[in-house]
Amino acid sequence: MSGSEGRPGVGIVYLVGAGPGDPGLLTLRAAELLRTADVVAHDELVSPEILALAPPSAERLAVGRRQGSGRIDYRLHPDVLERARRGLRVVRLKSGDPLIFGRGGEEAEVLVENGIPFEIVPGISAALGAAAYAGIPLTHRHVSAGVLLTTGHEADDAATGEESAVLVAPRTPGTSPSADRTLVLYMAARRVRPTLQRLIKEGFAADTPAAYVASATTAAQEVVVGTVADLADRITAPPPPRPPGLLIIGEVVRLRARLAWFEQRRPTKP
Amino acid sequence: MSGSEGRPGVGIVYLVGAGPGDPGLLTLRAAELLRTADVVAHDELVSPEILALAPPSAERLAVGRRQGSGRIDYRLHPDVLERARRGLRVVRLKSGDPLIFGRGGEEAEVLVENGIPFEIVPGISAALGAAAYAGIPLTHRHVSAGVLLTTGHEADDAATGEESAVLVAPRTPGTSPSADRTLVLYMAARRVRPTLQRLIKEGFAADTPAAYVASATTAAQEVVVGTVADLADRITAPPPPRPPGLLIIGEVVRLRARLAWFEQRRPTKP
Repeated sequence: MSGSEGRPGVGIVYLVGAGPGDPGLLTLRAAELLRTADVVAHDELVSPEILALAPPSAERLAVGRRQGSGRIDYRLHPDVLERARRGLRVVRLKSGDPLIFGRGGEEAEVLVENGIPFEIVPGISAALGAAAYAGIPLTHRHVSAGVLLTTGHEADDAATGEESAVLVAPRTPGTSPSADRTLVLYMAARRVRPTLQRLIKEGFAADTPAAYVASATTAAQEVVVGTVADLADRITAPPPPRPPGLLIIGEVVRLRARLAWFEQRRPTKP
Repeated sequence: MSGSEGRPGVGIVYLVGAGPGDPGLLTLRAAELLRTADVVAHDELVSPEILALAPPSAERLAVGRRQGSGRIDYRLHPDVLERARRGLRVVRLKSGDPLIFGRGGEEAEVLVENGIPFEIVPGISAALGAAAYAGIPLTHRHVSAGVLLTTGHEADDAATGEESAVLVAPRTPGTSPSADRTLVLYMAARRVRPTLQRLIKEGFAADTPAAYVASATTAAQEVVVGTVADLADRITAPPPPRPPGLLIIGEVVRLRARLAWFEQRRPTKP
């Protein structure tokens, strides 16, 4: 199939979301692209079961930012570009969704600059996976009418360079920012306590329900429920060696007490 | 497989996201559940290609709120409950993701109240599908550090009963609310103009980039780009007969000028 799409001698790069962890949450389109891939360039968090969908002959490249390249923060790994230039079909497999904290937009920009055809295949973002498998609806009538997806460390990339509001504006002035919206903080595993402290400083009521979900949708999933004030103390296990961990903040967290289903149904914990 | 899970004589209900439209965006898990379903209870927006994955013998039930039941707004359609009580495996297939404006949480509550086992399978929510296929990253370094998913008509369900802020609080006080966040408004097809007028009233700069995406991820996808001030005038086609239409507001919309790929790659427009 090499070079069968795009210009002669020029390959194609598929920027593909691999979903939150459970291989069953891959899309049919992603599975189809993996089966015909010449090269699979993947983040470190993508599961072996998913990588196994590519033919044995396909080249596997680990191109996550923590791997291989040391401290260099490529917009797009040069190996991906090089393979596409050689006319190969490259599946660039990213955890979650490519366009929600996946930096897929930056990689697409480099492909445009280099005249390489590309497609973008969305994936189940971590918040959606965590919500479903933890039994915490992100929106719920009379409880939450919207959800803000952001990170616990926005300031790293912020133009202002300051730690400023991560808040959702309250719909009803004068109420807590979490009163009728859900807040999901990605990449929170290693800074739960400072993140929650910041929320209180920014106006969240101390008794706002909060959940920490680690390794969402996998057999290793851990969910800890508390409040913005006490959640950090309730997390006794160290963060998983391969984070993803996220925080879900808001009244919807209370629904888990009735809607948790995954823990009851999975056979045994490893 | 009927009654093989859960209590003897009690079936199971899978609350499953069908994704935004393109059948390829279904998850592997959803496809697997459809193939072994006794009953498929689906929203009206789920495509025939997806429904065709269920065995010919499976019962199809159209249980969307616009169908069959007249004006009664069931939390869970009684036919779904009845089939599960008879020991059947019911796949409740919802557009997008069950827990983002899908009311999956309400359906799960009814199942809990009735002692029916259930699972929740996330799906690609409309915002993720529209972003990928329109070439509009929802987050992008130095442009947007978060995304708020909400609706253009929150007030319908709001406890306050008032039309109040749909805003994302600006990270940097004094800047436009859209300065470093993306706003996605679901279910916007039939009220684009009043929704955009409300945004301006609530502090969005008139020149904030805005996109309207209809029938996202399907061959009928339409994307119209403009600003909060002029987008409504730029939409000349009537809303599609089967909406979904959503609005993406924020600086990320500008990236589409370079990152649009779907229109170039799809064969011909119907």
